[in-house]
Amino acid sequence: MSAPVVILVEPQLAENIGMTARAMANFGLSELRLVAPKNGWPKKGVREAASGATFVLDNAKVYATVPEAIADLNYVLATTARERGQMKRVYGPDEAMADVATRIGGGQGVGLMFGRERVGLTNDEVSFADAIVTFPVTEAFPSLNLAQAVLLMAYEWRRAAGLASRRFSGEMLSPPAPREALLSLFASLEETLDGAGFYPPEKKAVIARNMRDMLHRMAMTEQDVRTFRGALKALSRRIDRGDRA
Amino acid sequence: MSAPVVILVEPQLAENIGMTARAMANFGLSELRLVAPKNGWPKKGVREAASGATFVLDNAKVYATVPEAIADLNYVLATTARERGQMKRVYGPDEAMADVATRIGGGQGVGLMFGRERVGLTNDEVSFADAIVTFPVTEAFPSLNLAQAVLLMAYEWRRAAGLASRRFSGEMLSPPAPREALLSLFASLEETLDGAGFYPPEKKAVIARNMRDMLHRMAMTEQDVRTFRGALKALSRRIDRGDRA
Repeated sequence: MSAPVVILVEPQLAENIGMTARAMANFGLSELRLVAPKNGWPKKGVREAASGATFVLDNAKVYATVPEAIADLNYVLATTARERGQMKRVYGPDEAMADVATRIGGGQGVGLMFGRERVGLTNDEVSFADAIVTFPVTEAFPSLNLAQAVLLMAYEWRRAAGLASRRFSGEMLSPPAPREALLSLFASLEETLDGAGFYPPEKKAVIARNMRDMLHRMAMTEQDVRTFRGALKALSRRIDRGDRA
Repeated sequence: MSAPVVILVEPQLAENIGMTARAMANFGLSELRLVAPKNGWPKKGVREAASGATFVLDNAKVYATVPEAIADLNYVLATTARERGQMKRVYGPDEAMADVATRIGGGQGVGLMFGRERVGLTNDEVSFADAIVTFPVTEAFPSLNLAQAVLLMAYEWRRAAGLASRRFSGEMLSPPAPREALLSLFASLEETLDGAGFYPPEKKAVIARNMRDMLHRMAMTEQDVRTFRGALKALSRRIDRGDRA
């Protein structure tokens, strides 16, 4: 196994199972197990809710009980929203997944168990897990949707497994402008503003410095400098014409 | 403002807006802004999808355009799934929220902008943002549901703001057993197993050590020790009786 298995215990709504499949696919999980899904399986509408992640649904396996669904695994986490009075280790999703990544790296099969929409897992089902995961939700509104809970675990798995790189990075598109292009822009800008009578003479040095700081914060590329210089040239041409009129 | 504002641009499905409100409430966000929601506002079914987080919906404000929706903010992030060729800083949700937490701590108003279900934000709308956030999804299945994207941002906000403590922690329920209780359990166990002829004499020391290691890994509480000793006593009573029979 190269990623944790998701186990939904008696899930009811097609919408939630489909959204679970989608969330799994988003973050690289693919093995879904269903324990006694309410009102049977497959469910009407589940494929639509998966929004294309139907390969997860097509490979989903159905089990009658939790022990059957976890028998081939080495480590099982139960997600719960409330205190159970059970003496188990309790992790946040990030801590849990750091440990899970190590286990999967070592060849263990790991299961993430999620309970029914309204009532979660029974205490008996939780007792089949090695540890508990709970989410850092607010006291005022702790009720997390089933597929949202799966999403957070899948997201933290991907981060912990070191796979969570951004898919693109804007700043690398083009390097910062050579400093000479920027220095030349500073000079044109100062000259143009000077010609337009913008600077009170005693403040010229300070204002010019502040403007250089502003322009530096823009982290301009060579293209940005060209655009800015073009705009400046258009303005100074218009000023010259105005002066002549 | 004590948390970022969520801005949905032309959202279409009541389900997604309701689930957005629920995800916001789960992680302590409360201000929702809607830019030109498709087919009007309020939408039928949106309150049901919010599953109780109706206070977020009741306070939602509707705007005609992105510039109107962001006018009072100091910093705006645009979430996008794909490269835009726009020269903006690009962050993952965790990096973005570390920065946002600092800004909000300094009194800035921050907006998180999310696009339409199918096509996201236009390049023009993205150009009104200070930076881009993108999610570390798989290449194979990058399409994240709208409310799922909001959830990840809200979750990372709560973590970055230092509010993401677990709501309970199982291990603290009861302290580890005093060592004398455990030592006495080791002695009873070894004596009982010895009496049952379990140990080959030359291996007794090694097996006893391994068993002590196993029991240590259980991190037993005083109650656990009592339960274990009770089970052991029941077994040895039965053995004694068997011997007598």
